[in-house]
Amino acid sequence: MAQNTVEKTPVTILGLGAMGTALARTWLTAGHPLTVWNRTPARTGAFATEGASVADTAAAAVAANTLVVVCLLDDASVDEALAGADLAGRDLVNLTTSTPAQARARAQWARERGARYLDGGIMAVPPMIGVPEAGGYVFYSGSRALFERYRETLAVPVGTAYVGEDAGFAALHDVALLSAMYGMFAGAAHAFALIRKEDVDPAALAPLLSDWLVAMAPAVHQTAEQLRSGDYTKGVVSNLAMQVAGTPTFLSTAEQQGVSPELLTPYFELMRRRLAEGDGEEDLTGVIDLLVRRPAAAVGLPRAVSEAK
Amino acid sequence: MAQNTVEKTPVTILGLGAMGTALARTWLTAGHPLTVWNRTPARTGAFATEGASVADTAAAAVAANTLVVVCLLDDASVDEALAGADLAGRDLVNLTTSTPAQARARAQWARERGARYLDGGIMAVPPMIGVPEAGGYVFYSGSRALFERYRETLAVPVGTAYVGEDAGFAALHDVALLSAMYGMFAGAAHAFALIRKEDVDPAALAPLLSDWLVAMAPAVHQTAEQLRSGDYTKGVVSNLAMQVAGTPTFLSTAEQQGVSPELLTPYFELMRRRLAEGDGEEDLTGVIDLLVRRPAAAVGLPRAVSEAK
Ligand SMILES: NC(=O)c1ccc[n+]([C@@H]2O[C@H](COP(=O)([O-])OP(=O)(O)OC[C@H]3O[C@@H](n4cnc5c(N)ncnc54)[C@H](OP(=O)(O)O)[C@@H]3O)[C@@H](O)[C@H]2O)c1
Ligand SMILES: NC(=O)c1ccc[n+]([C@@H]2O[C@H](COP(=O)([O-])OP(=O)(O)OC[C@H]3O[C@@H](n4cnc5c(N)ncnc54)[C@H](OP(=O)(O)O)[C@@H]3O)[C@@H](O)[C@H]2O)c1
Repeated sequence: MAQNTVEKTPVTILGLGAMGTALARTWLTAGHPLTVWNRTPARTGAFATEGASVADTAAAAVAANTLVVVCLLDDASVDEALAGADLAGRDLVNLTTSTPAQARARAQWARERGARYLDGGIMAVPPMIGVPEAGGYVFYSGSRALFERYRETLAVPVGTAYVGEDAGFAALHDVALLSAMYGMFAGAAHAFALIRKEDVDPAALAPLLSDWLVAMAPAVHQTAEQLRSGDYTKGVVSNLAMQVAGTPTFLSTAEQQGVSPELLTPYFELMRRRLAEGDGEEDLTGVIDLLVRRPAAAVGLPRAVSEAK
Repeated sequence: MAQNTVEKTPVTILGLGAMGTALARTWLTAGHPLTVWNRTPARTGAFATEGASVADTAAAAVAANTLVVVCLLDDASVDEALAGADLAGRDLVNLTTSTPAQARARAQWARERGARYLDGGIMAVPPMIGVPEAGGYVFYSGSRALFERYRETLAVPVGTAYVGEDAGFAALHDVALLSAMYGMFAGAAHAFALIRKEDVDPAALAPLLSDWLVAMAPAVHQTAEQLRSGDYTKGVVSNLAMQVAGTPTFLSTAEQQGVSPELLTPYFELMRRRLAEGDGEEDLTGVIDLLVRRPAAAVGLPRAVSEAK
C-alpha cells in the first residue's frame, strides 16, 4: 500500500550508452519519473515511448530534476556535456569512470558551481544491472549526506558500497579491484598458454583453475593483517625464501612449454629483490612496499641515509 | 567390522621434511604399516615411538614395501637418495615437485629400473594434509593402473585428481594453477599498493578484493570455451578495444598513487599488441596466443611465409 502512495524520487540521467541505458531502464521500470539526455538523440527514442521525458540539451535535463546521474564515456566528456548547465542546488552523482584525481577535481568543480557531489565506480557490466543475484555494485564516495539521502534510489539498478568522504575513494577502490582482476587474468592466461600445445582440454583445466583461484583469493585477508601490523611473518605457511626457491620450476616449465614468462617474471623479480633486502621468513607482503615509490629525494639512497637527511 | 579385518596397504615414505612428515602421519594414524626414511635421521625419531619402522638407508626402506612414496626437496635429491636402491617390482609414487620434463624423465628412469611410476603435484601446504575440509589435493599422472590400485591409500592424506597417462601432466597442472595464483597475488599486491598512502584500512579492502576475485575467477570457463572453439568473440561482454581504451585509467591511478605499474604493464602491453594485430571485438583470450612462442624457424616471419616453407 505504502508503495503506491510514496512518490519515487525523480531522476535525470545524462548519457545513454550501454551502461547509462541499463541504469535508466531500471529506474523507469521501478516507477521513478525519469528525464534522459544523450548527445546523439537517436539513443533516447525507446525511452520516450516508455514514458520518460527526453531533454533536448544537457542543461534542460539538469534543470528538470534535483538528482542528476551522469554516466558518460570519460571525465573529458563530463566537462563537455555540462559546460552550459546550471548546477546550483543540484545533487550530482557521477558514475563516469575516472581516476581518483579526476574525481577529486570534479567534486571541487561541482562545489564551485553550487552542487553536492557523489562519485561512483561501477563494479558491474551492463547485463548485471537490474539483476541483484549477479552481485554487481557501485562504489560511492564523496558527500555521505547525499549517499544517505538517495540510498534507496541508487540501490534500484545495482548494489551500493559507500567507501568514504574523499571523492577519490570510489575510483581508487574501483581501480584497485580491477587491477587485481587483471593480475588474475594474466595468471590464468599464462596457465592456459602452458597447456596450449598439449593434449589437455582447456575446458577440463578451467574448473580446476577457477576452484584454485577461489580457494586462494582469501589469502588477501592475511596480507591485510600483515600490512596493518607491519609484521610480515605473521601466520606465514610458505615463506619468501621457500617461494623464491620454487620459482625456477615455474620458469623452466614455461620454457619447456614454449611459453614466454613475461607475465610471471616481474612478480618473481620483486620476490627475489625483497628476499635480497629483507627477511626470508616473511610472507610475500613485502613486495607491496617495493611497488610504492619512495619520495623522489630518497630514490637510490639506502634507507638509513635517506632517513638521516 | 570390515575395517578391522581388511589389511591396510603398507607404505614406505622417503623424506620427512615438512610435507613428508604431514603425509606420513596421516597414514600412520589411519593404521597403515609405515616404513620411513630421512637423510637426516633426527627427523625419524617421533615416528619410531609411534610404531613406524625406521629404515637406516633409502635402499632398505624401498626393500620394505611395494608402495614407495617419495617426497624430497627436488628432482636432484630423488637421484641422490635412490642411487643405491633396487627398484625392480616397486610401485613408485613421486610427490617431489618437478617440471613436466623432469617427471617424464623420471618415469622413464623408473621404467628402466623395473618400477611402475606415478607422478604427483601437491596442491596443498602441510597444515592442509589430513584435513579434508581444507580442500587440498594432489594431481596424479602416469600409470593409471597404479593410480587405481592405490586410490584409497593415496586419498588418506589429501584429495586426489588423476589427470592423464603422460607422467608430466601432474607437474603441468600443478605449475599452471600455481602460476595463475601468482598472477592473482601480483594483482592483489598492486591493489594494496594503491591504498598504501591513503586513509584506507587494508582490512576493509581485503573482503571487497577477495569477493571480487572470487566473482571474476569463473571467467576462465568462457576463456576455455573460446580456446576450444577458436572463436574469441563468443559471449564477449567487454571487448578488447574497450578494455585497452580503459587502461590509461589504471596507469594514471598507479602514477597518482606513486605505485610502480610494473605488475600491470606486461599484460596491458599484450592486450595492446593483440588489438593492433587482431580484432577489437574479441575477448582477452588472444593474449594467450601471444604468449605461446612460434617455432624458432617461424619467428619474425609472417605466418603465411613460414607455413609456405
Ligand atoms: N560498459 C561497461 O561494461 C562499464 C562497466 C563499468 C563502468 N563503465 C563506465 O560507464 C561509463 C559509460 O560507459 P558505457 O559502457 O555506457 O559507454 P558507451 O556505451 O561507449 O557510451 C558512452 C556514452 O558517453 C557519451 N559521450 C561520449 N563522449 C561524449 C561527449 N564528448 N559529450 C557528451 N556525451 C559523450 C556517449 O554519447 P553518444 O551516444 O552521443 O556517443 C554515450 O552516451 C564509462 O565511464 C565506463 O567506463 C562501463
Ligand atoms: N611444504 C609445502 O608447502 C609444499 C607444498 C607443495 C609441495 N611441496 C613439495 O614437497 C616436497 C617436499 O617439501 P617439504 O616442504 O617437505 O621440504 P623440506 O621441509 O625442505 O624437506 C626437504 C626434504 O628433502 C630431503 N632432502 C633434501 N635434499 C636431499 C638429498 N640430496 N638427498 C636426500 N634427501 C634430501 C630433506 O632431508 P633432510 O631432512 O636430510 O634435509 C627433507 O626430508 C618438495 O618437492 C616441495 O616442493 C611442498
